[in-house]
Amino acid sequence: MTPEHRALVALSMLYEPGNALVGDDVARFGPADALHRLVSGASDAGLAAAARQRLGDRDPDELVRSVLPAAEACGARPVTPLDPEWPARVADLAGLYDESDPHTRPPLCLWVRGEGHLAELTDRSVAVVGARVCTEYGRHVATEFGYGLTRQGWTVVSGGAYGIDAAAHTGALAAGGGTVCVLAGGVDREYPARLLPLFDRIRRNGLLVSEWPPGATPRRFRFLVRNRVIAAMPRGTVVVEAGLRSGARHTARLAAELDRPVMVVPGPVNSRASAGVHQLARGHHPVRIVTRAADVVEDLGGCDTALAPAPAREQRPRDRLGEVAARVLDSVPRSAPATVERIAAQAGVSAAAAQRVLPALVAAGLARCEEGRYRLPERI
Amino acid sequence: MTPEHRALVALSMLYEPGNALVGDDVARFGPADALHRLVSGASDAGLAAAARQRLGDRDPDELVRSVLPAAEACGARPVTPLDPEWPARVADLAGLYDESDPHTRPPLCLWVRGEGHLAELTDRSVAVVGARVCTEYGRHVATEFGYGLTRQGWTVVSGGAYGIDAAAHTGALAAGGGTVCVLAGGVDREYPARLLPLFDRIRRNGLLVSEWPPGATPRRFRFLVRNRVIAAMPRGTVVVEAGLRSGARHTARLAAELDRPVMVVPGPVNSRASAGVHQLARGHHPVRIVTRAADVVEDLGGCDTALAPAPAREQRPRDRLGEVAARVLDSVPRSAPATVERIAAQAGVSAAAAQRVLPALVAAGLARCEEGRYRLPERI
Repeated sequence: MTPEHRALVALSMLYEPGNALVGDDVARFGPADALHRLVSGASDAGLAAAARQRLGDRDPDELVRSVLPAAEACGARPVTPLDPEWPARVADLAGLYDESDPHTRPPLCLWVRGEGHLAELTDRSVAVVGARVCTEYGRHVATEFGYGLTRQGWTVVSGGAYGIDAAAHTGALAAGGGTVCVLAGGVDREYPARLLPLFDRIRRNGLLVSEWPPGATPRRFRFLVRNRVIAAMPRGTVVVEAGLRSGARHTARLAAELDRPVMVVPGPVNSRASAGVHQLARGHHPVRIVTRAADVVEDLGGCDTALAPAPAREQRPRDRLGEVAARVLDSVPRSAPATVERIAAQAGVSAAAAQRVLPALVAAGLARCEEGRYRLPERI
Repeated sequence: MTPEHRALVALSMLYEPGNALVGDDVARFGPADALHRLVSGASDAGLAAAARQRLGDRDPDELVRSVLPAAEACGARPVTPLDPEWPARVADLAGLYDESDPHTRPPLCLWVRGEGHLAELTDRSVAVVGARVCTEYGRHVATEFGYGLTRQGWTVVSGGAYGIDAAAHTGALAAGGGTVCVLAGGVDREYPARLLPLFDRIRRNGLLVSEWPPGATPRRFRFLVRNRVIAAMPRGTVVVEAGLRSGARHTARLAAELDRPVMVVPGPVNSRASAGVHQLARGHHPVRIVTRAADVVEDLGGCDTALAPAPAREQRPRDRLGEVAARVLDSVPRSAPATVERIAAQAGVSAAAAQRVLPALVAAGLARCEEGRYRLPERI
């Protein structure tokens, strides 16, 4: 670990991720100098006091060293922007400005646990997120999306929560893919505990990722801060189900502000679990409706993605008829045969026009000719 | 009936509605002269032959007189662009050009049956259409929309078909409104027959409307031609459920080409009855997602409509907390009280900052102070 690496890890432990002042100092002075300025109070008195609160009587190097046993125990490694495994797209967060949310700067360090390579896994990835309190419909759809996207070569990124997130990860794993789970606490603090088997499978096939060091407790505000990584790391975000209060809407808003495609899966309008999704679709950010994984691939575009074939629309013989032929056919009676003249009058065309198309309708099996008169064939 | 009136009625009986050549001749020469030119062959030989097929040995005046007994018997009256009851907005169809559909010109005559005034009823109206083969969900939603729109002062226009159309009319009638049903056959040919009780109620509270004279048979191609009146007469179109082959998608496309707002009600993505709706939402025409009547009113805009209040989002005490206070509150333990310093370290703020907000959290009942340490209140 170089001093710059170590400084990034220390900064990520001293301050809650995304802090604007910390991020600006790192961008301006580099990690090691920024760390020194921040801890010494040369940058901001409040940040220095906050750092002291976490340092106690340790210096930053000691703070970093204190977490390494826990990291080693769970097989977690710190990945920083200086490492080749860094997912480049999170740097876009630097362009985000949100007056009401001072924690939107790019992460300085990601703790990574699992067999995957973070940069490779997330290069062609899409977030699939949604409500914890979901319906069977939402769970089914999220699983299908997770499965279908993975089968089409996309990595599913989600938040490892109950409900939609868990279903999306599960679908991805079922397709044999390496899904990425971005947590709001240490990668050794699998939360919620009942999803432990899922986290184990993710770790063995993909990655558990967190901005917080091993041992850190997942907290409510950390889920919100974490959402910006889920929004920024993949190429787009799909929201499957979300109530009016769901955090998934926050992720979608961040993705929209990052100019990432935001896609939503509609649901019944009388389902509370879809109310937030539909509100997103009616909001001022452009949002795409998606109904299946192929729609997502199409909307993420790029020259490496094929356009999705349109849903199959059943073809029927009369689809191929011209407009006059269709009108004439509609005027051919079923019960008793009619003359060309009568059919023409019903159809509103000349007798000559009717006479021109009727033989073709007979040849196609759509009408029958009986002694110069026409009728429809018997129903089969 | 003036000669011009009578000519319009005759033209509407001689030719299938929407015919481009007929419409152009009427616009250019006026109804009476256009009729003479068309029937005599001065305009187009095919149209003259088609007219002869329907006239037989009658002249146009005799043709008009032949339908009056049937009209009188059912209480239907012909309404033309020369009458004050004419719904002005259908004239916009003159601007529609569709190479694949030669029957998009404005109607020349509408047969009207019922107690309502066509122009007044349709001035503030919206089409609510959808599939005949619908689900219980679609039927429920269409009824709710029909009811809600009518309660908010809008007239529901639909096509009187099984399924969504019937549900929309039914909802409108339940709200005590005068709904308008645009048929593809004579207003005395209530089709489908099983909806006869519905047609009776529509007639007594609103209007049955048709471009075809009394006695005319509803035919497949007439449903398509009829759709353009449903699209053009109201201010916008709502599609509730539509399969991939549903005619409601045709109505929506026409409405979009007329620059009317097109709104769709989403449904489950695994429902075939919503597949056409979702395909519309992903198409190249701009389409709005609506979940309730108030959304439709909002999207139809205009200075006489109030904006819909946003769906109620449950408020919770912590929604009003600032960002530092929320982080501090998240770091207050539930089990055993903690010092200000420990809480500050967890929250990543200075002890002074934590000390500033903790008393307010206690005052709001969100935290408890025990001998200088803080914990969360007991769960109730």
